Amino acid sequence: MRTIKYPDKKEWEALCRRPAIGKADLEAVVGEILESVQRDGDSALLSYCLKFDGVELPALKVSEEELSEAQSLVPEDLKKAINVAFVNIDKVHRSQLAGKKVIETSKGVSCWRKSLPIERVGLYIPGGSAPLFSTVLMLGIPAKIAGCSRIIICTPPEMTGKVNPVILYTAALTGITEIYKAGGAQAIAAMAYGTETIPKVYKIFGPGNQYVTKAKELVQNDGIPIDMPAGPSEVLVIAGKNADPDFIAADLLSQAEHGADSLAVLVTDSEELAEKVTSAVKIQIRELPRKDTAAKALDNSFIVILKTMKDCIDFSNAWAPEHLIINTDNSNELAESVVNAGSVFIGPYSCESAGDYASGTNHTLPTNRFAMNYSGVSVESFMKKISFQELSADGIMNLGPVIETMAEAENLRAHRNAVSIRLNKIRK
Amino acid sequence: MRTIKYPDKKEWEALCRRPAIGKADLEAVVGEILESVQRDGDSALLSYCLKFDGVELPALKVSEEELSEAQSLVPEDLKKAINVAFVNIDKVHRSQLAGKKVIETSKGVSCWRKSLPIERVGLYIPGGSAPLFSTVLMLGIPAKIAGCSRIIICTPPEMTGKVNPVILYTAALTGITEIYKAGGAQAIAAMAYGTETIPKVYKIFGPGNQYVTKAKELVQNDGIPIDMPAGPSEVLVIAGKNADPDFIAADLLSQAEHGADSLAVLVTDSEELAEKVTSAVKIQIRELPRKDTAAKALDNSFIVILKTMKDCIDFSNAWAPEHLIINTDNSNELAESVVNAGSVFIGPYSCESAGDYASGTNHTLPTNRFAMNYSGVSVESFMKKISFQELSADGIMNLGPVIETMAEAENLRAHRNAVSIRLNKIRK
Repeated sequence: MRTIKYPDKKEWEALCRRPAIGKADLEAVVGEILESVQRDGDSALLSYCLKFDGVELPALKVSEEELSEAQSLVPEDLKKAINVAFVNIDKVHRSQLAGKKVIETSKGVSCWRKSLPIERVGLYIPGGSAPLFSTVLMLGIPAKIAGCSRIIICTPPEMTGKVNPVILYTAALTGITEIYKAGGAQAIAAMAYGTETIPKVYKIFGPGNQYVTKAKELVQNDGIPIDMPAGPSEVLVIAGKNADPDFIAADLLSQAEHGADSLAVLVTDSEELAEKVTSAVKIQIRELPRKDTAAKALDNSFIVILKTMKDCIDFSNAWAPEHLIINTDNSNELAESVVNAGSVFIGPYSCESAGDYASGTNHTLPTNRFAMNYSGVSVESFMKKISFQELSADGIMNLGPVIETMAEAENLRAHRNAVSIRLNKIRK
Repeated sequence: MRTIKYPDKKEWEALCRRPAIGKADLEAVVGEILESVQRDGDSALLSYCLKFDGVELPALKVSEEELSEAQSLVPEDLKKAINVAFVNIDKVHRSQLAGKKVIETSKGVSCWRKSLPIERVGLYIPGGSAPLFSTVLMLGIPAKIAGCSRIIICTPPEMTGKVNPVILYTAALTGITEIYKAGGAQAIAAMAYGTETIPKVYKIFGPGNQYVTKAKELVQNDGIPIDMPAGPSEVLVIAGKNADPDFIAADLLSQAEHGADSLAVLVTDSEELAEKVTSAVKIQIRELPRKDTAAKALDNSFIVILKTMKDCIDFSNAWAPEHLIINTDNSNELAESVVNAGSVFIGPYSCESAGDYASGTNHTLPTNRFAMNYSGVSVESFMKKISFQELSADGIMNLGPVIETMAEAENLRAHRNAVSIRLNKIRK
């Protein structure tokens, strides 16, 4: 982890730029997978599953037996932990439901909005080395609270041909039982276009590797919205001289273990702290099962030393981190100055892991500097807002002349007529 | 306008499909424009302006003189009308600002969200036959309420080399004075990538022709979010036997005059009403300045007669109209069953023109069946939501073991360590 001391503001932009991700090469490969699923449906999915996951599936859909069997395969302590996380995530997301506010703008003119669920949504849960059951909670809970009438999950099977039981347990806990064994770009294609077995959905959510990410980008061009553009996970820690270097080292490493392309950045006004953190990282990394991955991630990561805390927060706002940990003497005050970040963790005890799993906030967040213009997943991500208005006869009498004048000035006579014809009848 | 009587439910899907819009042909043309602006900046914009708008510009930016001159060129009655619309739109959109709600999920674990403006946004206002000053209100007002620190407008100049004064008047009214003379795909490119004069923005809004639409789609792939995917404007009217056929004809025509590709659909349970509306349309269209355009739009449009009002609302939900007018004896009750629509107009006096201009709701709405999964523009469109959390020592003591168990089950040891190291220090 290199340390950059007192970079000039002109150098900040270069430090904020994320490493480029190869995109072009993938387009052909993923495009072919999308076409194949559109053309051959289920049979394409089954043959990709054999090819990529090494499994010959008798059926794409997870059976009721498999679902109920999973309940007994999850250790009790893990079930309890998941249940606590469920309650917290549910509490936070339930508070995001919007009430109805009717605004009378002119006399007799009432306007309001109503949030309604996107009817069908698809959640992608990656497989691989670890079963990401926490993502099932983070997507399934807001989808349920939003009231989506059909929520499906696609996730690749394990070598046994079954889905990891913790994923099935967590899905059932959130109330989702329509689960299909499909992974990678082909799963995204199935949810975007539909197959004989898997229904077409109206929005697709979830993390994934570069193939999944590319597939989501391509189906978005076909009019299927996605949660957000993806990029490697990242954390930026702002710490002052009194912060505990062991805490910070642990936070940087918890990000670094995600993948070789993860980014962990420390921004501080204390050279002494920077040195202590560097040492602590070297000690802590030794014991990690994923130490090779973490070491690679740290190669891309860095420590920036700046003159003041004001500079630190300015740098963070320019960097726009997915996760921002503020561990200083005045964490709360600094947090007020955050302009760009996915999720902010305030104070010495708010480690990123808390938000990743159980505090209640969502862990599906904008990376890759997209915190400048995207929000993390919330209940709103699963809903659309419809505006309503009702004008009484008085209302159109009051506002009609205004509309007539404006429509005429935009050369839209029929727009004007729609008002005039009403005013004429009322006046009769 | 053809009439389809009692189509079987199986035929609905075909009626809901919008006419295909040629997309592929545009990609090369627009791609070249984007590249050229990225490469040559201002000089590309100036030469495109000469080529497409027939104007040799001395400068891209609208000067202070031009802005103040515009104030005196707008008729007083139009100013007054725009001012009334401004107040109404401002009222509705100000109500969309979210307050802060802190949720304590476990003892010592507090979570909340904060909405913050996207710092820089770009609004595109098309030129052409009519100056769309209403769109300046619909985009400028929510951008200002959101608190975006830099809001720019790009709009093509008229043949005089100046921007239409009503657009300038309206922009200044909303508080926007950074206006550039650039139109078409090249304007979108300028806002997405920046030039010597025009700043790069973080989100792009606004309607436009197929070149503008394509450019927005392409820059979105480069990570610049846009308001929503575009399509021709459309209205669906649900009317019962007691509705005034003249009102409905006027509403259908006000949509049809927008463009030859606009869609106007009437859904009713009354054959008699369908006939009366057909006659009224034939009479009203004669007097319209844009009657040729409206006639072409009506060629693609249709009337559907269904057996019950329940069927009518079901059809509307499947069609997912941008604008939905409900003009029946029980309009309010039917409105409760709306699932997919951009904006809903309830009762005989709520014509679409009201929402287009002055009632207060936003007129930038999802078309092309995107009302199934997109919302119209609102204050939220100009903001991103950041989540925050703070755990006290008690908080991490309470929740820590849950996080440890879950992290370990996802094979993420360093995530677990970030908690364990804190618990150990607190216990000491």
